[in-house]
Amino acid sequence: MRRLIAAICFAIAAFASPVLAEDGYDLWLRYHPVEAAYAAQYKPHATAIIGGDTPILASAKSELKRGLDGLLAQDTPIVSQPVDGAIVLQTGDTNLPEDGFRIGAKTLDGHPVTVISARTDQGALYGAFRLLREIQTRAALTDISDAPKIKLRVIDHWDNLNGSVERGYAGTSIFDWWRLPDLVDPRLTDYARAEASIGVNGVVLNNVNAKADSLTAPYLQKTEAIAKVFRPWGIKVYLSARWTAPIELGGLKTADPLDPAVQAWWNAKADEIYALIPDFGGFLVKANSEGEPGPGDYGRNHAQGANMLAAALKPHGGIVMWRAFVYSEHDANDRAKQAYNEFKPVEGQFADNVLLQIKNGAIDFQPREPFHPLFGAMPKTNEMLEVQITKEYLGQGTHLVYQGPLYEETLKADTYAEGKGSTVAKIIDGALDHHALTGMAGVSNVGDDRNWTGHDFSQADWYAFGRLAWDPDASSRDIATDWVKMTFSDDPAFVKPVVDMMMASRETAANYMTPLGLAHQMATGHHYGPGPWVCDLARPEWNPCYYAKADAKGIGFDRTKTGSDALAQYAPAAAKQWADPKRMDERYLLWFHHLPWDYKVKSGRTLWNELVTDYDIGAKQAAQMQQTWAAMKPYVDPERFAAVSANLSIQAREAKWWRDASIAYFQSKSGLPLPTGIAPPEHDLDYYKSLQFPYAPGH
Amino acid sequence: MRRLIAAICFAIAAFASPVLAEDGYDLWLRYHPVEAAYAAQYKPHATAIIGGDTPILASAKSELKRGLDGLLAQDTPIVSQPVDGAIVLQTGDTNLPEDGFRIGAKTLDGHPVTVISARTDQGALYGAFRLLREIQTRAALTDISDAPKIKLRVIDHWDNLNGSVERGYAGTSIFDWWRLPDLVDPRLTDYARAEASIGVNGVVLNNVNAKADSLTAPYLQKTEAIAKVFRPWGIKVYLSARWTAPIELGGLKTADPLDPAVQAWWNAKADEIYALIPDFGGFLVKANSEGEPGPGDYGRNHAQGANMLAAALKPHGGIVMWRAFVYSEHDANDRAKQAYNEFKPVEGQFADNVLLQIKNGAIDFQPREPFHPLFGAMPKTNEMLEVQITKEYLGQGTHLVYQGPLYEETLKADTYAEGKGSTVAKIIDGALDHHALTGMAGVSNVGDDRNWTGHDFSQADWYAFGRLAWDPDASSRDIATDWVKMTFSDDPAFVKPVVDMMMASRETAANYMTPLGLAHQMATGHHYGPGPWVCDLARPEWNPCYYAKADAKGIGFDRTKTGSDALAQYAPAAAKQWADPKRMDERYLLWFHHLPWDYKVKSGRTLWNELVTDYDIGAKQAAQMQQTWAAMKPYVDPERFAAVSANLSIQAREAKWWRDASIAYFQSKSGLPLPTGIAPPEHDLDYYKSLQFPYAPGH
Repeated sequence: MRRLIAAICFAIAAFASPVLAEDGYDLWLRYHPVEAAYAAQYKPHATAIIGGDTPILASAKSELKRGLDGLLAQDTPIVSQPVDGAIVLQTGDTNLPEDGFRIGAKTLDGHPVTVISARTDQGALYGAFRLLREIQTRAALTDISDAPKIKLRVIDHWDNLNGSVERGYAGTSIFDWWRLPDLVDPRLTDYARAEASIGVNGVVLNNVNAKADSLTAPYLQKTEAIAKVFRPWGIKVYLSARWTAPIELGGLKTADPLDPAVQAWWNAKADEIYALIPDFGGFLVKANSEGEPGPGDYGRNHAQGANMLAAALKPHGGIVMWRAFVYSEHDANDRAKQAYNEFKPVEGQFADNVLLQIKNGAIDFQPREPFHPLFGAMPKTNEMLEVQITKEYLGQGTHLVYQGPLYEETLKADTYAEGKGSTVAKIIDGALDHHALTGMAGVSNVGDDRNWTGHDFSQADWYAFGRLAWDPDASSRDIATDWVKMTFSDDPAFVKPVVDMMMASRETAANYMTPLGLAHQMATGHHYGPGPWVCDLARPEWNPCYYAKADAKGIGFDRTKTGSDALAQYAPAAAKQWADPKRMDERYLLWFHHLPWDYKVKSGRTLWNELVTDYDIGAKQAAQMQQTWAAMKPYVDPERFAAVSANLSIQAREAKWWRDASIAYFQSKSGLPLPTGIAPPEHDLDYYKSLQFPYAPGH
Repeated sequence: MRRLIAAICFAIAAFASPVLAEDGYDLWLRYHPVEAAYAAQYKPHATAIIGGDTPILASAKSELKRGLDGLLAQDTPIVSQPVDGAIVLQTGDTNLPEDGFRIGAKTLDGHPVTVISARTDQGALYGAFRLLREIQTRAALTDISDAPKIKLRVIDHWDNLNGSVERGYAGTSIFDWWRLPDLVDPRLTDYARAEASIGVNGVVLNNVNAKADSLTAPYLQKTEAIAKVFRPWGIKVYLSARWTAPIELGGLKTADPLDPAVQAWWNAKADEIYALIPDFGGFLVKANSEGEPGPGDYGRNHAQGANMLAAALKPHGGIVMWRAFVYSEHDANDRAKQAYNEFKPVEGQFADNVLLQIKNGAIDFQPREPFHPLFGAMPKTNEMLEVQITKEYLGQGTHLVYQGPLYEETLKADTYAEGKGSTVAKIIDGALDHHALTGMAGVSNVGDDRNWTGHDFSQADWYAFGRLAWDPDASSRDIATDWVKMTFSDDPAFVKPVVDMMMASRETAANYMTPLGLAHQMATGHHYGPGPWVCDLARPEWNPCYYAKADAKGIGFDRTKTGSDALAQYAPAAAKQWADPKRMDERYLLWFHHLPWDYKVKSGRTLWNELVTDYDIGAKQAAQMQQTWAAMKPYVDPERFAAVSANLSIQAREAKWWRDASIAYFQSKSGLPLPTGIAPPEHDLDYYKSLQFPYAPGH
């Protein structure tokens, strides 16, 4: 009988509404029913949901219900009195760290229940998502304690007020500024759910290349409408602030941070914002960088600028995230050195509600960079890490390149700032220098594409960012494994090869784009595809040729004492690992050293042969991913299988293009023959130079 | 037992997957189960589906199955042998017109069945959609015969290759040119279904302000990928052609249509296209208009230009749609007259595979315009109608303005070209002058917003376009009624007030934007909101003041003999209806006449008082729509109810803004007091003039 009913139900469910294609919208919160054996195991511990009625606890209960209903194919009641097997949200546990939680079996009024206890509502929300993750990944239900190690876990949207997204490859902005505040897209709630599920507690709504308009009254109303959606999910809104807003909006003659009228304008603006949004997070600022205005325009330094804004926000509990991504158009120095040179002198001068937001590397989100020399160099300053989730330099919207290992590589990098073990993770989580205000920011890859991130696998970068901002010591492989299970399938025949493919993908991309520590070889402007030959732009550091410095004799950027000596910005023990080309990780070789083409690398090959071989391997690895994925067909819905297949085919083609164009260009410099067995580029160099992409997205 | 099973099934269906919010994606193809009494009535006549296996018949069968499965909550088998109650697709009936169909009861091999018979596969597809519509609208199943009256039913996408949509208010383009041809969004199939369901059989993929790139080999591959999706739904793809492509792509020195090398280039390009896309539809061309290049640059006329392209397409069966929307930057003449002046002299000179595509009015998609004087003026020319579905001048993405009545007004307008009854409908369906090549085009309002058109009610404009292109004599009220039933609910308590609201909405918009025949009073560039004061642009006809000609004495554009005499471009009997301000439909009054402020209109009021009253009524009507909709809450899902409510609130606010700004401006001209009972504008004129909208969409 039961089977019959099930069969009838299936028929009715299948036909009562059109069959829904998998479109990736559900992300990792895809609560499809678990297998019967697992359901039998979990159901006795998920008979009901109990919890308070604050906005955030209401979110936690609704998410638990949504998740359990789906995963266990049941109608989970939300009740007010304990029953056997209930899940109980309890807050106010002052033994727990803020926003941490503990999940464990308890007896309540004589009933065996599972308690998610937390100090704060937000902690309980995170506990609820964690419990669901355990079921999604088919884990045995055991006691769990967890808490975020980093205080501010922030997503930066480079979204413009006209709806475009700078370096966005997944459609336009999810923030419909035009129709806000009247029309609030229900999608924003799903966005908040996704962010909360990975522990994100702050979102910067607008591009760091900011418009003053976002600080006008009408736009603050729009921001307030978004804040209202985010608040029940424990997420604060932040805005990128345009430095010259007091001039553009306030009619002042100056934006000098030491001018009392300027300070007064920002104070009044902060009052206005907080009257509307009492839990407003604060400002993100890109100042005196790439043409943006800043305190430097008035002869003031970054600390003077940041502190002026910080003073306006301080009474309201707000903070300033001040970006360290600066390079001067008047500084002929190695671009990799400039941020350090500007910020190191103001160490100790930043207000306590300022964080210095530092990119993972000193150039700009390359496939591989050594960690930024500012990490560990300013122990008195709140240093936070900025990584890019969107893949401006990593294949953009169409390449499968899982960035978890890249983030992990940065976080685990040892700065040696205070001896061995002074990892970037320990600096940004505050452990090394005992900072309470800590943070990690990721530049969003989210757009209004149905699957949020354009490429289905780019969801994993978003997910990994959140997990690593929560726990910077986590393993990117473990995270990938969870993501694959939650997003696609927990079948080991699927999980293992797909996670392996993901974990290898970043090295693959580094191989076909910028092997051996090369950087910034992308075409200019849109950064799509190879452009190593570009050498005619106004500023030297805008040119790919500036970074590779390839000529007839050799290749690489000498950042040792004989060159720019950027190495000297690192702690001696850190610098030492890269000082000797013979004794270093060769994946950073040409970042630090200019070497002759016939230099012998560890493999025994010449540098030239090694470089060409790496390009060749990268292209082959990219092509191989197609085979790996093709074998996964039985485990994936046809829609996502087809979309990923299509993107992998683009990636394989473009990896070959990268290989061929790069080899053609560098061969024009080295004049050397290709190693045996390496096929020549498909076209000549002029062909690759002739390619133009006026419609490349994201620019 | 049955009830029990149903209850269990409901529970399982509800919890096995998250409850899906209504998001408008399904459009009017929302196949939710009909009420039990109706199901009982239809089910005996929908027991199975039978039909051939050509690509288009496969589409028809799959759509029938999808529709019947949903509407009747059953699993409808697709079978090969007749059974009682089957629906049978039969083609090859040469008694029927091309693409027409007949639906009726028959006996087949002893089985009572419903036969959808047609001459062509496409006719059968249309019959399938029609049968589904009958069930969706709860019609009694009777015999039906129908056939399209117009041959080319075409949607024009003003979509750019970078993904933006000119005059688009529903997100970015559904055509992801960047990731095509590898990645083909499954959404394109749903788009093709929607178009086919309303009889559309052609889609122009790119903006009339065209880039030559769309004619390059890589972009033709992308177009081919789209054609492959559209073909099984009976839809041909067309491209907008850039006149100077032979120069830009072919390296020629000229694009002179009489130059043999130019003709040869286009011939070769046509060969290249048809080798890839054998059923390619042809070209749409905007030439010598608003800065676009054209044959006029070489001293050639439009016919010489169009015919050169037509010659290239002719061997392949392709056609040219040549736009009549031209006005010269060197012609000081009334803009409303210029198209006629340019085209009338080349009457009889166009090749037989050219259609002249004429906008409904002589200016540009205004809330109300008299029909274009070219209609009926060129009986030897294939004249097709172009209407705008997107609402550039009708509230854009946020106003509920149903355009069915606007289209109907144009189609039913009598040109008197060959005596009474020479309606625009009869001209464009070929009846009047016995043309076989006929067409109607609509400028798309579709974007990648989840609900396709941004505003849920803007779906109705798309739907009405298709229905009227199929049958230009149809009633826009009947169409609205079908749409409301198919899209929302067939409950009479919902259908009647909502259809009434839709039918009144266009007059409402005309009242609050441009009453009494005013036109083009929108702000410049983005055309968002009022800008009647704008009078300083380089070209006179770019200025709203050019169209209203308001001064201290009066208002209106004199197009009679004492003015531009645009009236003389109409047939005398048509002109007569507008010649005398005292004896005309006053909704066209100021389009044709400049009158003193104290002129007495039919109501007995002065022109000034009438104008102000109309603005006031328009704003009140817009506000009233909110009340109407609020009462509909019980009949609508919460998601679409909220979205429409939000848009209506924007509309009410903006209608008041239009009213206030317009009254403030015209009062600054007339110097007259407001009529009794009319509230003064909320702000002074300077306030309205000061408003700036740099992020207005669609521009």
